[in-house]
This record gives sequence, C-alpha cells and structure tokens, in this order.
Amino acid sequence: MTAFLPQLPVKEASRYAQVNVAADAADSNYTDIPSRDEWQVSQGAAYLHYTPNETIGGVEFHEIPDDVATAPLVADASSTILSRPLDISRFGVVYAGAQKNIGPAGLTIVIIRRDLLDARRDDVPTMLSYTAHADGGSMSNTPPTYAWYIAGLVFEWLLDLGGLDVMAQRNQKKAETLYSAIDGSDFYSSPVAPRARSRMNVPFVLADSALDATFLEEAGKAGLATLKGHRSVGGMRASIYNAMSQEGVDALVAFMRDFEQRHG
Amino acid sequence: MTAFLPQLPVKEASRYAQVNVAADAADSNYTDIPSRDEWQVSQGAAYLHYTPNETIGGVEFHEIPDDVATAPLVADASSTILSRPLDISRFGVVYAGAQKNIGPAGLTIVIIRRDLLDARRDDVPTMLSYTAHADGGSMSNTPPTYAWYIAGLVFEWLLDLGGLDVMAQRNQKKAETLYSAIDGSDFYSSPVAPRARSRMNVPFVLADSALDATFLEEAGKAGLATLKGHRSVGGMRASIYNAMSQEGVDALVAFMRDFEQRHG
Repeated sequence: MTAFLPQLPVKEASRYAQVNVAADAADSNYTDIPSRDEWQVSQGAAYLHYTPNETIGGVEFHEIPDDVATAPLVADASSTILSRPLDISRFGVVYAGAQKNIGPAGLTIVIIRRDLLDARRDDVPTMLSYTAHADGGSMSNTPPTYAWYIAGLVFEWLLDLGGLDVMAQRNQKKAETLYSAIDGSDFYSSPVAPRARSRMNVPFVLADSALDATFLEEAGKAGLATLKGHRSVGGMRASIYNAMSQEGVDALVAFMRDFEQRHG
Repeated sequence: MTAFLPQLPVKEASRYAQVNVAADAADSNYTDIPSRDEWQVSQGAAYLHYTPNETIGGVEFHEIPDDVATAPLVADASSTILSRPLDISRFGVVYAGAQKNIGPAGLTIVIIRRDLLDARRDDVPTMLSYTAHADGGSMSNTPPTYAWYIAGLVFEWLLDLGGLDVMAQRNQKKAETLYSAIDGSDFYSSPVAPRARSRMNVPFVLADSALDATFLEEAGKAGLATLKGHRSVGGMRASIYNAMSQEGVDALVAFMRDFEQRHG
C-alpha cells in the first residue's frame, strides 16, 4: 500500500498493512500538493490511496493521479463525490461517506472494481467485508433505510438539474466567485496554492486576525453560519458543497466586502 | 464465550473465539426456550450471549438468565429494548439496533460495563472498538446525526408517556389482546410455548394454511400490513413494537374474528 496524507488512514492502515507514504505536504504546511514527480511510489504496492479533497485545509486534486503507479487507485471521495463527473474506470475503489453531497450521515457508498473483491483479507469481520456486502446486495445487515431514501431523492434532484455536468459548472462558478473576492482584496487571503484549491471548502484568513471573532459574530447575525475554520488551522472556512446555492455565495461575498469597508 | 442461538452470531463469533453453544432450541423447532437447568454453560467463558427476543419465531425470555453463569451476560436487545424497564446492572453488554423501538435503521446503541472495555482484542479495527467509541464520546466517526435526533424525539415521547413502566403496561395489554384472540379460537393458533411467547412479535397460523394468501390479501385491503410470517417459518406474524397502538391491535383482532366468521 502507498498512501497520501491525512495521517488518520495511515495510522489505521498501519495496523493491518505495510504503509509507505508516497508524498507528504508538510513542507507547505498542507497548503499544496507535492508534484507527482516527487512522489515515492513503492513497487509492488497493493494499492495507492489518496483523498481527492481535503476539507480542513481546503486542498483538492484537480487531476486523478493514476499515472504515478500501476497499483489500483483507492480514493476517499467523501467530500467531492457528485460535485462533478468522475471517471470511475480510473479507480480500483472509490468510497464516500454520504454526509457531504449524498444524504444524511450514517451511510457510506463503496464502488469497487469486481476483481478487487477477491483481494480481501480473510480475517476481516463480515460487516467490514466488501465481498459480503456485494453478495448480499448491500442488505446483509439492516440497511439505513431513511438515509437510502434521502440519497435517492438527492440523486433525482441531481438528474432533474441536468446531472453532474451542470453541477460541476455551478460549483465552478461558486468557487470562482469566492476565490476572486478573496484574491481581489488585501483584507482577505487564501493560504492555499492556486493549483490545489478546493472547490468545496474555501479557507481564508483576515489580514488582521484580531478581527476574526468580530467577523464571525457579524456574519452570524447576517445569516451566514459555520464559517469558523477548523480548530487545527483557525481562520475562516466556507464549505460550499452541492447544497449551497450561488445566492448563498453571493451573500457571503457581499458581506465580506461590507465588512472590509467598515473594518479595513 | 457461551452462546444461545440464533446461528448467525455463532458463526461470526467462531471466527474470533471458541464458541460453546449452551443451549439449542432445535428440539422444539425453536418455539420454546430450553430450561435453564439443561444449559451446558462452559467454565471460564468470557461471556454468555443471548438474544432476549427472537423476532422470527416470536420467542422471548421473560427472565434474565444471569443465574446460570458467572460470566458477564451479553445481550442483543434490538427487538426488546425500551419495550419495558431493564435492570442494566445485570448485564455486561447490551447492544441494540435502533430500528425496532429507538429510531431509524443505521444507528446502534451499546451499553457496556466500564471494566469490560479493557477486555477487548487488540486487533479489532478502530471503528469496531468499543473503547475507541467510548473515548471519542461516540463521535470518533461522523455520527448518524439524523438518526440520533429522531432517537432523541422517541426518548422524549417515552418520557412524556410516563416512561418504560407505562410502555410495559401498554405492550403487555397489546400482547394479551392478541394472544387471547388466538388462543380463544380453533381457527388460529400460536406455535410458541406460552412461557416463551414474545410481547413484540406474535406469530400465528391458520388451521387451514390454504387460506393464508386470502387472509393476507384481505388484511391488506383492511389496512393491516406486513402480517406475512418470515419466509423461513411461514404463517402470519404481527410485530407490535412500541409504535403499534392498542387500537391497531384491536383492529387486527376484529379483522381476525370477521375473517374466521366468513371462512371458518
């Protein structure tokens, strides 16, 4: 196995497999993705794991790194799935928690290449066996029926909208609106390298961090919620998943300009 | 480990522990619980597992069998939890899927004696470690928030009702209403030994099983749904969990009498 950060999957996987970290973004303090020609991919790896979008730092892969290894690519797509089309044929396994773009928390979707079902460990508990779930039609346990139902409604909503091509355009426009506002101001800035900026999670910082608390308080009064950055990085973070409208992003940008005029 | 049937937990546990089946209800075709003085409880067992209510056969323990072993009692209480008061101090572990009496499918509640947290295997994946979930305040993963919320509403509903004493009385009356109707007729009968009859799942059969399909069809037209017995045992089954009202049971009994008059 070869792994990209974050650290948690590395720690857990190390209990069951030899993990080789192919690349580590520590040099950029996790604000960029190391160039793929610097990755140390191990020969004979069973798979290469990466997370296409990292929600805390707001870092996203804009290309699928399936050219760096012959091993099957395994992706935790929790925070990008359904945000745009995905060429599933380039992956061995794509898994995603539902709670960002699919439906209620408590549902996980796994898409696995059929031949990889046979590559399993024999000592895995049955409820963690992809083979068992495939054989049981995803009903070898009592499935989370309500979450399934809501996910179905979300899929219908996406299809009615015009599918993932349309959703990709919407998300692209939302992200451009927000990054333009950040980059066009000396009052705000983005810590993330442009080539690695997430279209789902947009962190930004104020030039004067002493204003952070005021910003969050006034934003809350303006109906703009959960803008506080993750406690491990601070600052602000706007998560603009599929459910966030362009109007919501526009309202945030208008508030940011107004706040800058009053406090800048 | 010592285990009571059903077979599925035995099969799964056998992959990780030496399983000794203390008692098997095969002699009664799973319509009764073997007397506890016949159980073959192994010395030095880590725990004794049982399922207080078995939903397919409609068999329920009316006493907690904590007198047959010194090992901690572990119970799958999925289909009885919250149906009546439970003396949790008599158990080592009580676990329950939410989908019967708690809330939406996809949530599981585990109540574990604190000292048993240390009795875990070290090779268990973190998401299956009770210790990890206890340490993380049940939030080491993203919890199923909507199911939590609904469960909270159900708990409030139970408290408003007067708590589990009141719920126990309701369930007792519902079960007595239905079993009385079954026992007071030659047209219907219960396959389960009276001492082991479930208060949650009431299977019954028609004297003439050729009428089964007609019974289910007419019941459906009368608004009485999902009365078909589990495919492994056939016949009928009325599941009367907490959410089923006395009025619902009365309607079923009235239909049963009417059906008997027309077809008996």
